Amino acid sequence: MTTTDYDLVIIGAGPAGLTAGIYAARARMNVLLLEKSVPGGQVLVTDWVENYPGFPEGISGYDLAEKMKVQAEELGLQFDTAEVHSLNLTKEKKEIVLKNRSITTKTIIIASGASPNTIGVGEDKFVGKGVSYCGTCDGPFFRDKIVVAVGGGDTAVQESLFLTKFAKKVYLVHRRDELRATKILQERAMANDKIEFVWDSVVTGLDGLFGVEGVKVKNVKTNDEKTIKADGCFIWIGILPNASFINDAVETDEYDFIKADKTMQTSVPGVYAVGDVRDTPLRQIATAVGDAAIAAISAEHFIENF
Amino acid sequence: MTTTDYDLVIIGAGPAGLTAGIYAARARMNVLLLEKSVPGGQVLVTDWVENYPGFPEGISGYDLAEKMKVQAEELGLQFDTAEVHSLNLTKEKKEIVLKNRSITTKTIIIASGASPNTIGVGEDKFVGKGVSYCGTCDGPFFRDKIVVAVGGGDTAVQESLFLTKFAKKVYLVHRRDELRATKILQERAMANDKIEFVWDSVVTGLDGLFGVEGVKVKNVKTNDEKTIKADGCFIWIGILPNASFINDAVETDEYDFIKADKTMQTSVPGVYAVGDVRDTPLRQIATAVGDAAIAAISAEHFIENF
Repeated sequence: MTTTDYDLVIIGAGPAGLTAGIYAARARMNVLLLEKSVPGGQVLVTDWVENYPGFPEGISGYDLAEKMKVQAEELGLQFDTAEVHSLNLTKEKKEIVLKNRSITTKTIIIASGASPNTIGVGEDKFVGKGVSYCGTCDGPFFRDKIVVAVGGGDTAVQESLFLTKFAKKVYLVHRRDELRATKILQERAMANDKIEFVWDSVVTGLDGLFGVEGVKVKNVKTNDEKTIKADGCFIWIGILPNASFINDAVETDEYDFIKADKTMQTSVPGVYAVGDVRDTPLRQIATAVGDAAIAAISAEHFIENF
Repeated sequence: MTTTDYDLVIIGAGPAGLTAGIYAARARMNVLLLEKSVPGGQVLVTDWVENYPGFPEGISGYDLAEKMKVQAEELGLQFDTAEVHSLNLTKEKKEIVLKNRSITTKTIIIASGASPNTIGVGEDKFVGKGVSYCGTCDGPFFRDKIVVAVGGGDTAVQESLFLTKFAKKVYLVHRRDELRATKILQERAMANDKIEFVWDSVVTGLDGLFGVEGVKVKNVKTNDEKTIKADGCFIWIGILPNASFINDAVETDEYDFIKADKTMQTSVPGVYAVGDVRDTPLRQIATAVGDAAIAAISAEHFIENF
C-alpha cells in the first residue's frame, strides 16, 4: 500500500467540493480532491439553474459545474478519481482508505453529497424533463401546469404547498390513507383547493415522449391503475447522504447526515462536512458553496495550529 | 405616516440581500428590498473576484453585483431606496421605520453588511488599487510583492501569516510594542522570516500614482516618519456591522454582530440575519449567498405558519 500525505483531502466534486478546492488551492494548501466518477455532482443532471446568484439568464447545471471545475483547475487544484472505502480518524494524521492504497492528510472536507430516494419505475430517464426532487429549485418552472407530487412526510406536504404557488393543480400521491406530516401542514394542504389527494396509491410508471406527459398510479388496496395527465412529477420519499464510507468515523444525525458546527467541523477536529451530506436546513448550490468556503478556511486555520 | 404591508422586507442589497431577494421573489413572496444607496454593497468596490464559484476567469466586483441585481429584477424583485431608522419588533407584525414613513411586514431579513474600520489617511482612494481589508480575498494577488499589514489582533496576525504564502515580505505595523493576538499566532509570526514588525507605529499616509507604491509610517514614541516601499497595504483594525438601526431589537454579540441560529433566525422569530452583519465565522460572497438562501426559505416556511 502506498501512502501519500496532504494538508487537505476533499471528498466529492460537486459544487461544495469544488468550492472547497477553489479556496484551498488559492490558499496554496497541499490539497487533493477525490471524486469517484466525474466532477459536478447532482448539478450535472440539473437541467436549468436560475437561483444561483450571478447568472441572470440562468445556466444549465452542466455548464455551471464545468465552470466551477475549470476555476478550480486554473487555481491549481489536483484531482484524482477514486472511491473512498473508509476513514481512519483515530490518529492525528487522518487516513483515507481507497481501493488499493491509502492517503494520509492533516484535514478532510467531506463533500460527498446526497441522493434522493427513487421510486425505481424508470424516472431517471425523465430527470430534468419533468421529474424533480426539489420544489425550491424547479417549482417555478411549472407555472400553470399540472404536477404530481409523491410522498406523505413533512417535505412532501410542505413542498406541495409551495408548488401550488405555480402549478394550477397538484395531485399528492401517498401510499397510505393519511399523511405523516405535522398536523399544521396537513391542515393547510387539506384546505388548499389546488391540492387533490390520491390516497393508498403508488406511482408505477411515467408516460411521455420528450418529457413527462402522464403519471401512472396504482391503488394498493383495489389494485386499480390509472394515468394522471401531468407535466411534472415531484418525488419526495426521502433523501440519503452519500456517506456509507463514514461508518461512525464522525457523528451523524438520525438520518445519517453528518453533524457539523458553525465552522463546519464534525465531531472529529480537522474533519469538516459541507453541502448536501451535512445536517443542513437547506440543500442548494448557494448553500453548498457557502459551507465549503467556511470549511476550507477552517481547515487552513487548523493546519496553522497543527 | 403611510404604512405598507409585506410578507418579507430585506434590508440591504449586497450579495446577501440580493440572493435573499432572488429566492423570495422566485417563491412568489410579497417582498421588498430596501437599500440606502445603490445595490451591490462592498462588492461594488471590490476590484476583482476570483473565488466566487462559477467564474473561472474571475469577475469584477461591479459586474458580479450587477449580474445579481439584474437576476433579482428579472425574477420580479421590488426595490426601494430608503435608509432604515429603527425596527419595532414587539408585535407580531414587524414595523420598519424609515425617514418619513413606516412599513409593516411578517418577516425581515437583515443583510445590511459590515464596514472595515479605516485609518482615515485617504486610503479609500486606493481600495482595489493596493489597499485591502481581506487577505483571503486579495492575498493571492500579491505574489512576490511587498506588503504592509496594519493591526495587532488575531485577524491581523493570522492574515499576515496567510499573506506570507504569497508576498515576499510583510511589514506588520502595530501602534504598540506588543501584539494583542493569541500567543500561538504571535509565536508563529515571530518565527516567520518574511514578517518584519514595525512596532509603536501608525500609518500616516499612502504614496502612489495609480496604486500603492509606498506606505508612510510614524513611530508614536519618537515621532520619526519613514516611507516603506510596498505594493499593498492590508488594514485589519476591526470591522463594524452596519447595524446602528438595530438598537437591541435583536440579540447581538460583543462586537454588535447579530446572532443567528442554523436557520439564520435571530432572537426574534421571523427576523433573520445573513452575510457580513451576522456573527459568522467567514465574510465572503460565497457565504453571504449561502446564508441568504437559507434565510429566504426559513422566512417562507415561517409565513406558511403565520
